[in-house]
Amino acid sequence: MLSFEILSQDQRARTGLLVTPHGAIETPSFVAVGTQATVKALSVADLHKVGSQVIIANTYHLHLQPGEELIEKMGGLHRFMGWDAPLITDSGGFQIFSHGAGKEHGVGKIAPIFPEEQDRARHLSSRKQKPLVKVNEDGVEFISYLDGSRHQFTPEGVIAMERKLGADIILVLDECTSPLHDYDYTKTAMERTHRWAVRALEEFLHHSDNKQALFGIVQGGAFQDLRKESATFTAEKAFDGYAIGGSLGGSTEEMHQVLEWTIPLLPQDRPRHLLGIGEIENIFEVVKRGIDLFDCAAPTRMARTGTMFVRDADRFRIHILNAQFRDDPRPVDQACDCYVCSNYSRAYLRHLFAAKELAAFRLASIHNIHFLESLMRRIRTAIKEERLSHLESNWFSPK
Amino acid sequence: MLSFEILSQDQRARTGLLVTPHGAIETPSFVAVGTQATVKALSVADLHKVGSQVIIANTYHLHLQPGEELIEKMGGLHRFMGWDAPLITDSGGFQIFSHGAGKEHGVGKIAPIFPEEQDRARHLSSRKQKPLVKVNEDGVEFISYLDGSRHQFTPEGVIAMERKLGADIILVLDECTSPLHDYDYTKTAMERTHRWAVRALEEFLHHSDNKQALFGIVQGGAFQDLRKESATFTAEKAFDGYAIGGSLGGSTEEMHQVLEWTIPLLPQDRPRHLLGIGEIENIFEVVKRGIDLFDCAAPTRMARTGTMFVRDADRFRIHILNAQFRDDPRPVDQACDCYVCSNYSRAYLRHLFAAKELAAFRLASIHNIHFLESLMRRIRTAIKEERLSHLESNWFSPK
Repeated sequence: MLSFEILSQDQRARTGLLVTPHGAIETPSFVAVGTQATVKALSVADLHKVGSQVIIANTYHLHLQPGEELIEKMGGLHRFMGWDAPLITDSGGFQIFSHGAGKEHGVGKIAPIFPEEQDRARHLSSRKQKPLVKVNEDGVEFISYLDGSRHQFTPEGVIAMERKLGADIILVLDECTSPLHDYDYTKTAMERTHRWAVRALEEFLHHSDNKQALFGIVQGGAFQDLRKESATFTAEKAFDGYAIGGSLGGSTEEMHQVLEWTIPLLPQDRPRHLLGIGEIENIFEVVKRGIDLFDCAAPTRMARTGTMFVRDADRFRIHILNAQFRDDPRPVDQACDCYVCSNYSRAYLRHLFAAKELAAFRLASIHNIHFLESLMRRIRTAIKEERLSHLESNWFSPK
Repeated sequence: MLSFEILSQDQRARTGLLVTPHGAIETPSFVAVGTQATVKALSVADLHKVGSQVIIANTYHLHLQPGEELIEKMGGLHRFMGWDAPLITDSGGFQIFSHGAGKEHGVGKIAPIFPEEQDRARHLSSRKQKPLVKVNEDGVEFISYLDGSRHQFTPEGVIAMERKLGADIILVLDECTSPLHDYDYTKTAMERTHRWAVRALEEFLHHSDNKQALFGIVQGGAFQDLRKESATFTAEKAFDGYAIGGSLGGSTEEMHQVLEWTIPLLPQDRPRHLLGIGEIENIFEVVKRGIDLFDCAAPTRMARTGTMFVRDADRFRIHILNAQFRDDPRPVDQACDCYVCSNYSRAYLRHLFAAKELAAFRLASIHNIHFLESLMRRIRTAIKEERLSHLESNWFSPK
């Protein structure tokens, strides 16, 4: 069971309290990505300390390794990973995309389009004996990237797996199309995703013990009529919340367009989750359009390459391996009060990355998530005080 | 400055309090290995939590990267790495060995001798254009493993570097011979190490500000007369403490012999550090012979391969990737109260290692060091209560 209460509004942005059986989430909230039942390089104690409220794990990855049966036997995903707080499982739709069309097309969800890379990807893909992923009406067949074994995901099967995992919020199986799919394919895939959504909801309601909540997923690529059709269709179904998935076009501007088309058609009183988006530059734009939850692997992925968030730098980030930080005694970010900024200099962090020391990955991840969660706290306060646009302009022009 | 007070004795084992400018160490104590100014995969907060009292870093590695000048500029090694507790720097003698004769001979400090491996190592080494390491009377020349640059370490130069690093306890430059070096070479190297020790001590006393303590190093391989000669020679010099270094023979039994020959000749009232030894099986034997400090990279190195300490298993360790732990809901060690054993199952840790997740390395390292530090606390208590042999027999025959 899920309750969602909207506490304040500032234009279309809103704060809310999303209550799950494992605790409440103050929204809008960043959702930490814990694909394989761990947020990379961090412990659950680290996540509590940096202020993370909710983790999203992945049914596709956990099915392949270690398997949902094992996790159920170990007491469910919360207990398995030691996270006694809200938990979401994604369905695997995006992974089917990224190992399928995304790989063939050489693109991500928002794909700045580099023709050479796509040609290379198409070339590589054309040499493959068989595709890794096959989608049909029943569901999707795919080959494990781990051991080459064959697997089938159906809308009903994924709900059953997610029930075994036991997250508080679970997502329906969808087909996530690529920015390079044309209108016709995107429409066909969207309509199939809608039929899958109905099957998933039926399966979910049939066995529901009221401990889990089910979110539908809006598809339709970057096509206005498809997004509106998908939002209307999904909104009419009795989901506990609504995710926005799939291709979000070729640019940040197109992504904003997709949100403009979609969000007004979703129920006002239900939570909205933007899947796989959350670069530090996007957050204000997304929250201003009424998003309550968003997950993104970039903060931790960037951390592992030495890219760390700072307030007063180009695109809010520095690359700690740059020579200029070699003898820089300052913390990564002057105003940050995280464990890393309270204890270590840029010079030391640069040394850890240069020396390829494991501690580097964790420390950089702690800083990046703490930085992001601090921003979210400020955003929530600003919405409550109806001064979000003030915070935004202040944020983008630091003194 | 260093003060050392012996608090209790049980046969030849003893507890003591070693007071440094950055705090006191209760001895006998494990010394965590922080070669590159970090104990691999851990933060200093982790180390405080598991009960680590002292870290040993390495002058050789820190000279090559990031350089002692930089560390001095950043406020010294304590401040650079955020460790406001006792700190030792090793001189680099062992690294000169391991990149030189150790590599050529294909052996470590205690070398179970596998003839094939040595043949292979000799073969590889004979194909090299030039040796990585050249030892002469003045000191040692070597080529950086990082960038091929040439470096020279002299006894005086190493003291100057260690002064810049600023550890509480520093070690003289020695030549660490291989278990495969013959009597004549071992004697020649030992005599040179003695001359270096005199030079290092002179350099140290010339500039000493009384904030650092200098330890001499006993050499002599696994040869009784050489070890006795080296212990006698070193003991006569005004060192603040005494380390036992170099080759310790071809077996644990030979290592015990070396301790039997050496320790009775060292001053009773000064601390004794056994360099590079501390496998869980060795600890009682070493402490019983009067060792006060020992450092060993094995607990953290084993952790990173998934080998974790447990009380009731063969050789006190399990390999967590073994299939039997796949669905094992128990903590790694039943009696352990570390963060890992309090929060995670063997099944989860196995999953993290199987999925190659970064968190695995840290969690396993936390457990192994906590396990070892708990054993050390029990050993210190047992010595105070004069029941060390009782604890030992109990430890080796768990119910």
